[in-house]
Amino acid sequence: MGNVPEPDVILGKHAIIDLSGCNPELIGNNAFIQETLYHAAQIANITIVGELERHFEPTGYTAILLLEESHLSIHTWPEYNYISVDLYSCNLDTDFESVKNFLVTRLGAEKAIFTLIDRGFFKTNKCSPLAS
Amino acid sequence: MGNVPEPDVILGKHAIIDLSGCNPELIGNNAFIQETLYHAAQIANITIVGELERHFEPTGYTAILLLEESHLSIHTWPEYNYISVDLYSCNLDTDFESVKNFLVTRLGAEKAIFTLIDRGFFKTNKCSPLAS
Repeated sequence: MGNVPEPDVILGKHAIIDLSGCNPELIGNNAFIQETLYHAAQIANITIVGELERHFEPTGYTAILLLEESHLSIHTWPEYNYISVDLYSCNLDTDFESVKNFLVTRLGAEKAIFTLIDRGFFKTNKCSPLAS
Repeated sequence: MGNVPEPDVILGKHAIIDLSGCNPELIGNNAFIQETLYHAAQIANITIVGELERHFEPTGYTAILLLEESHLSIHTWPEYNYISVDLYSCNLDTDFESVKNFLVTRLGAEKAIFTLIDRGFFKTNKCSPLAS
């Protein structure tokens, strides 16, 4: 499961970053997590144009940044020392690996899923890669 | 590329939905796209707790819904008749396929990528599936 086909024309890349065994003293600190997200955005050199956040009861936190380049989201499950991040950027030069490495170090993660998915379109009757 | 490993414990499912060859008269209509996103949320039976949107120049639109269950996002590239959707839900019973079918029909897509990714954590020293 989870094998994403490659489109004919790549317009963005999407990093799936799931971190297990994070530091329990940090992962439940929502202000720290929000700050972490901003640091990650700086490393990725992306432009934030909007933000949403939500504190869940009894625990858990979501923050989503709307970007010029697409979006960056974080969801925490402090009860499992687990955090789930998506960075989708239409800047193909975005340094996703540095973002992942920063998150692993900052959150003290023991294990990480890190996969880059190509996002884009297939050639069809209504669109070819030459159209613009 | 794009093969996402399966975690030991699944806490959510994430649908990657990229639609090519969409109807050019619809895909550039941002109000229609926003309405489409709300319809999709109804079909998925998810709870919206926040929203962000952005109209790009000269064309393109992003809307992101923050959910009780995680998030739902849409990014449009009208110049390519292409639309990119992510639905990440911690309700494992979410009917992702119906959402995809609705989007394909409503937007007149010719080709679709539709992949479900499992999101969750690995067993580590700091967390086992029995911890909660």
